[in-house]
Amino acid sequence: MALSGEVTIALDAMGGDQAPKMVVKGAAIALKRHPGLRFLMVGDEPRLRTLMKRRKKLLAATDFLHTDEVVPGTMRPSVALRQGRKSSMGLALRAVRENRASAAVSAGNTGALMAMARMMLGMLPGIDRPAIAATMPTLRGESVVLDLGANTECDVRNLIQFAVMGELFARIVLGYQTPSVGLLNVGEEEVKGLETVREAAARLKAAESIRFHGFVEGDDIAKGTVDVVVTDGFTGNIALKTAEGTAKLYSHYLRSAFGRSLLARIGYLFARSSLKAIQKQTDPRHHNGAMFLGLGGIAVKSHGGTDALGFANAIGVAYDLVAHGFNERIIGEFKRIAADRIDGTSDQQKAATA
Amino acid sequence: MALSGEVTIALDAMGGDQAPKMVVKGAAIALKRHPGLRFLMVGDEPRLRTLMKRRKKLLAATDFLHTDEVVPGTMRPSVALRQGRKSSMGLALRAVRENRASAAVSAGNTGALMAMARMMLGMLPGIDRPAIAATMPTLRGESVVLDLGANTECDVRNLIQFAVMGELFARIVLGYQTPSVGLLNVGEEEVKGLETVREAAARLKAAESIRFHGFVEGDDIAKGTVDVVVTDGFTGNIALKTAEGTAKLYSHYLRSAFGRSLLARIGYLFARSSLKAIQKQTDPRHHNGAMFLGLGGIAVKSHGGTDALGFANAIGVAYDLVAHGFNERIIGEFKRIAADRIDGTSDQQKAATA
Repeated sequence: MALSGEVTIALDAMGGDQAPKMVVKGAAIALKRHPGLRFLMVGDEPRLRTLMKRRKKLLAATDFLHTDEVVPGTMRPSVALRQGRKSSMGLALRAVRENRASAAVSAGNTGALMAMARMMLGMLPGIDRPAIAATMPTLRGESVVLDLGANTECDVRNLIQFAVMGELFARIVLGYQTPSVGLLNVGEEEVKGLETVREAAARLKAAESIRFHGFVEGDDIAKGTVDVVVTDGFTGNIALKTAEGTAKLYSHYLRSAFGRSLLARIGYLFARSSLKAIQKQTDPRHHNGAMFLGLGGIAVKSHGGTDALGFANAIGVAYDLVAHGFNERIIGEFKRIAADRIDGTSDQQKAATA
Repeated sequence: MALSGEVTIALDAMGGDQAPKMVVKGAAIALKRHPGLRFLMVGDEPRLRTLMKRRKKLLAATDFLHTDEVVPGTMRPSVALRQGRKSSMGLALRAVRENRASAAVSAGNTGALMAMARMMLGMLPGIDRPAIAATMPTLRGESVVLDLGANTECDVRNLIQFAVMGELFARIVLGYQTPSVGLLNVGEEEVKGLETVREAAARLKAAESIRFHGFVEGDDIAKGTVDVVVTDGFTGNIALKTAEGTAKLYSHYLRSAFGRSLLARIGYLFARSSLKAIQKQTDPRHHNGAMFLGLGGIAVKSHGGTDALGFANAIGVAYDLVAHGFNERIIGEFKRIAADRIDGTSDQQKAATA
């Protein structure tokens, strides 16, 4: 799909703590940013129409797909697979599978979305398992980190495939020319990392198509030592959430410091606009939108607790992936990798992929 | 050893970026806090004596053990095991083994210290592997996290042993009456964690001697959801360093916010004393001292880049562990656990431990 053309995105209008209101508002914000967008709003149509009554531009860019069913946040993925097909989430994904939309965005149940997306969209040729990727703020800007929880255990092939997908993501969505890639590991010599991580490093080192930096440690994420941080879903999920928790702890310290005395409160008034700039820099809404990479269609997960601005950013990520032909390029990259022989793909598999 | 009695601690006087100066200064600070302390300073005696010339009280509390040899920060643990026996680190550990000191503290090479400590001090009965533990700041105060890198892969028994050691540490060093224990895991249902973590959770749940909270996620560390966070050394190391990196990123944002405009700089002047309080709260020197738990003697690792205050805190941690008979109590706990049958110890092993 061309950069300037129309892009239709299916929205799970009922997923997320503040849905459907924040979905409608988020879509309106995204539409202002990308006038080429069209939406397929999946959910309670009468309710959605009421919310959009005064949003003429948004209404003109929107088609509806009605359903009363919703996947609750607590539903287990295996249950969602059986019972969620007619839910707003399931129908949004089906619209992608049937090419009525180029991507789906949902702020609903992550596990259910992953399971249903995998079943309904399948995997891209050459990729064994999907990865959840997101950007994290760093001293140098932002980096992509993956996998953030799709796979608690990964083999060497998975890690290499994540590296390739993450590198392409950094080029396409973040606009980095030749992104550097690092494998997350621990620092002690001798105990250096797990067998799988070591083996993946050896192969990535040998690959000409990737600028592989080597191992990085936990603090390298925030330092921005590399543009793409690759790890298994267990470690990645814990790293992401540890960073979020630490950030909240610091915000709490800061708030309580400024409330500590009259002088501090006066100081806050003087420094307010500069402090607001930090708030903006560290605003999780700017890093909203975890991508499920490797699927046969584009699915973006917005944070469940996000507001309209965060949801608009998640739509923006989906738009970028579609507009730049992310999935088509992933398929191309994997042909290149097969030639590089870095991912251990057998000749049979290569023939099938080619 | 009684709380009020004399405690001798062997100091690797040559380990750490600012050694031996910060070791001497750190020892002086620690001595003020704990007048019952005695030191065995291991290192370049003439140089140490020159540094201590005017510190009469410290001199009176210090014995020297001279050596010219030092374990460099880059030496591999396996090399240190062969070549480091007569180094300041090796001799400090030997003093613990030979009961000339009750604990060793070093700011030197972590991997070397771990390898040598394990070889020279052996393991406590009932414990298969040592764990590195440290405290991390939380919204509620501080929590113990372990393992932070001694074991990249852990089995169920290891995790349970870490839980028991961490719980005791929280009681003894942090003074919590009945500390709660959580196992670090990822949040998605269905993909919930690795087999090992699930199995360890089942056994901890069944154990009467431990207040087991269940699974916790990465952001629960900073929230202080539990007092003791148990995980394998790979994940723990990455969580710790991710938190450190995020904290530095926030300090950087804050500094640059206050430098952004004249108003902001004026604001800083007003709020300075309150902001210094944050600095103190988040000062890594207050959380200095990673303990090697499970060894047949007490060894504490100070951060290599620490200054005198941080080193004094590491000495303080060693003092607490000795004064409260940590290792003796660990042995007692493991007898209790064997009765609880939570760690999968065989009857033979139980007989040997009893």
